Amino acid sequence: MAKKQIIIGIDPGTQVTGYGIISSNGQNAELVIVGSIFMEKFDDHYDRLACIYDRTLELIKEYRPDCLAIEAPFYSKNVQSMLKLGRAQGVAMAAALTHKLPVFEYAPKAIKQAITGNGNASKEQVADMLTHILKTRELPKQLDATDGLAAAVCHHFKLKMGITSSSVGSKNSWASFVKNNPNKIIQ
Amino acid sequence: MAKKQIIIGIDPGTQVTGYGIISSNGQNAELVIVGSIFMEKFDDHYDRLACIYDRTLELIKEYRPDCLAIEAPFYSKNVQSMLKLGRAQGVAMAAALTHKLPVFEYAPKAIKQAITGNGNASKEQVADMLTHILKTRELPKQLDATDGLAAAVCHHFKLKMGITSSSVGSKNSWASFVKNNPNKIIQ
Repeated sequence: MAKKQIIIGIDPGTQVTGYGIISSNGQNAELVIVGSIFMEKFDDHYDRLACIYDRTLELIKEYRPDCLAIEAPFYSKNVQSMLKLGRAQGVAMAAALTHKLPVFEYAPKAIKQAITGNGNASKEQVADMLTHILKTRELPKQLDATDGLAAAVCHHFKLKMGITSSSVGSKNSWASFVKNNPNKIIQ
Repeated sequence: MAKKQIIIGIDPGTQVTGYGIISSNGQNAELVIVGSIFMEKFDDHYDRLACIYDRTLELIKEYRPDCLAIEAPFYSKNVQSMLKLGRAQGVAMAAALTHKLPVFEYAPKAIKQAITGNGNASKEQVADMLTHILKTRELPKQLDATDGLAAAVCHHFKLKMGITSSSVGSKNSWASFVKNNPNKIIQ
């Protein structure tokens, strides 16, 4: 049996950041914890970033994951929201990188596809499938939390299929997105 | 005389990140160090982010600045480059936030305006003015380094003018950009 891996999944946002931690033995995954970091209480953009960074770091210190899986949209029509999202992703990544954790990013569609078999599944369908996969009765109603968890479970499936190399993992996601979506790149 | 402040300025980029540290007594500024972090040697996007984070953290630990000034473009035509830039900014900010340093961001035009009196000045003009302001003979030819330094000097000028409140500092930059540039926001 493969060595047990702890995977932290995170869905960084500037309002709410969802996270989920699972334990994977390469075949099955178990839920460790799932939750949300709420940032609405902070007016200041930097307080929000600091909150994502601090909380991610706390989770890493407490649960000692082996890697970080992150939900990372590659595209938005609004460059401002993309910059804010990039900052939120950046601080979460910094928390992982400072602990030398490898980072794997997955596009939202890839996560939905991995969990439900349908890249266009609703958040509710994803949450339903997660309860089956993780054999847990109920997940939080807060869907941002399950988005973070879904990123972790997506990475578990990639591990199970033995395809966490750069082809689906970190290194080439960007390049392949650009290659496959030339119409979405503003020249 | 005002308390001496150490200001670290940074211009995060995914190829090169420039930085400059100055000491400001509220009236005059002195150069402490200026340099660049070169990331071309890393193929991996995360190695580059880790490099920005680690080096910024090292600089903060070594020079113990009181705040971080960051050159932060608010606009680009390309959402992908904006996301990458957001991540680079995010990891630099994480390094500052973990040391509880306040962050002040300035748009490139605002920095040029503060240094040269002309928001459309060339990088060379900015570098020339910096040598006069800081009474230093020569600055590195690497213009990314002087961009980081220029952010620090811009913040020094704002301190001198007593206008580092949220109106020019961190909190409202985004809101004021959006307000002043409605045509640049894709609805």
